[in-house]
Amino acid sequence: MSSYVRLRLDLAYDGAGFHGWARQPGLRTVQGELEAALDTVLRVHGSSLTVAGRTDTGVHARGQVAHLDADPEAVASAAGAGDLDPCAALARRLNGVLEPDVRLRRVTAAPGGFDARFSATWRRYCYRIADDAAAVDPLTRGHVLAWGRRLDLDRMNAAASQLLGEHDFASFCKKREGATTIRSLLDLSWARVDGVAEATVRADAFCHNMVRSLVGCMIAVGEGRREPAWAAEVLARRERDSAVTVVHAHGLTLEEVGYPPDDELAAQADRSRVVRTLAP
Amino acid sequence: MSSYVRLRLDLAYDGAGFHGWARQPGLRTVQGELEAALDTVLRVHGSSLTVAGRTDTGVHARGQVAHLDADPEAVASAAGAGDLDPCAALARRLNGVLEPDVRLRRVTAAPGGFDARFSATWRRYCYRIADDAAAVDPLTRGHVLAWGRRLDLDRMNAAASQLLGEHDFASFCKKREGATTIRSLLDLSWARVDGVAEATVRADAFCHNMVRSLVGCMIAVGEGRREPAWAAEVLARRERDSAVTVVHAHGLTLEEVGYPPDDELAAQADRSRVVRTLAP
Repeated sequence: MSSYVRLRLDLAYDGAGFHGWARQPGLRTVQGELEAALDTVLRVHGSSLTVAGRTDTGVHARGQVAHLDADPEAVASAAGAGDLDPCAALARRLNGVLEPDVRLRRVTAAPGGFDARFSATWRRYCYRIADDAAAVDPLTRGHVLAWGRRLDLDRMNAAASQLLGEHDFASFCKKREGATTIRSLLDLSWARVDGVAEATVRADAFCHNMVRSLVGCMIAVGEGRREPAWAAEVLARRERDSAVTVVHAHGLTLEEVGYPPDDELAAQADRSRVVRTLAP
Repeated sequence: MSSYVRLRLDLAYDGAGFHGWARQPGLRTVQGELEAALDTVLRVHGSSLTVAGRTDTGVHARGQVAHLDADPEAVASAAGAGDLDPCAALARRLNGVLEPDVRLRRVTAAPGGFDARFSATWRRYCYRIADDAAAVDPLTRGHVLAWGRRLDLDRMNAAASQLLGEHDFASFCKKREGATTIRSLLDLSWARVDGVAEATVRADAFCHNMVRSLVGCMIAVGEGRREPAWAAEVLARRERDSAVTVVHAHGLTLEEVGYPPDDELAAQADRSRVVRTLAP
């Protein structure tokens, strides 16, 4: 493509019906559905998205961000003549083509230097657990885990506080050759919202299974099976511990992706590319 | 039954999988599922529930209340020997038998004079509409109506304020022979919650289709198809107006049922029985 426009896509999806974000032949994935919709609406072939958070099977998103490099003429033509805002028109067209379990919330022309993945400075996830029959809501059962035992959030917060900061999170990650497992955990805390236990988990980035392993570790503490200090012991070991359960995907939602001010987008992207590809 | 204990059941359900509350042969209904679960757990036949709000097909509930008159020995035996709280044990057993789209939140021994239907002084419903692509959340699409046109809540609140108080709501009701359509509308207002337009609708009781007709009327005003004063005109006509749409069921949730203090439960039930069966 000699000349293109980079579009920022803000999107939300119910992970239940998808085999995760990443395109896979023969499986329904968010990336696959979106790229097919883009091909249809833009009348092109091979639309290719870059995403901020590659969610696993069953994981939801409310604040996912992706980018697409598109032919400006295809965008204008899809929007239709005379449309004052071609990006908004594109979002409407895409939502008309997509199933209701994935929605474009906004399409905008990305600022210079923007990269949905590498410009991001943090990702914020929420894990929700209804650990009390009185708090179980059938209307939210698709994204809130029902748990049979009561959780002590004070204990879980005591465990969480020991994990904050920059560490090698190898104990909580599915290892991938040649990639670092050092991450900065910026927020990790539990609170009750309408009776539901909600974890806020924010980091510069996450390695595979990291949020669900952290939550699994803290559930063991919240139930009283482990002491809060156990979390720090697991972390210090720097290798996967079979006692740490990777909890169910359906309680996990990617809520928000953070980006720096526009004039720092390019520099942030350069920094991330170096760090993320460095061997540990 | 010579001696019985009256149980209060607080429950929640996702209306999508039910043909409404009321038992119907051959159809899956909330009452049908619950009574079958009670028969199983209590090892009886013909358990019969009385409910505060008979919801239609597709309507949800978070704060539904019902009562059951049960044999105390059957309850004790279902709870198991040595259980400190037989009602809590019964709730657990029922939740173990029921599908996850209906949940018992609490089972308690009802105070004297309690009648789930007739002791209630008000019912509160919420109707939720996502009228903006940025507010549409795939995770809540089962109980929030997605609406293609933007709604002006100020206009809708202007219309709503004219409907408050005691009126004959025949214009908004599916008529039933020999029953009054006079109701006291205690709250009717719209607010934005996380971008979603939410109506709070509270009345002493509702006649059939009343909430969904009121919302349909206000949507016409919010879209600008009608003026706010139209709501009062429809009300004054006292007969069904084909211009008032009965909106989709799935945006509607019964949130809460209000009861007076325990020592007024019996008197309230007596009053309601008289009023509700009086011809208009």
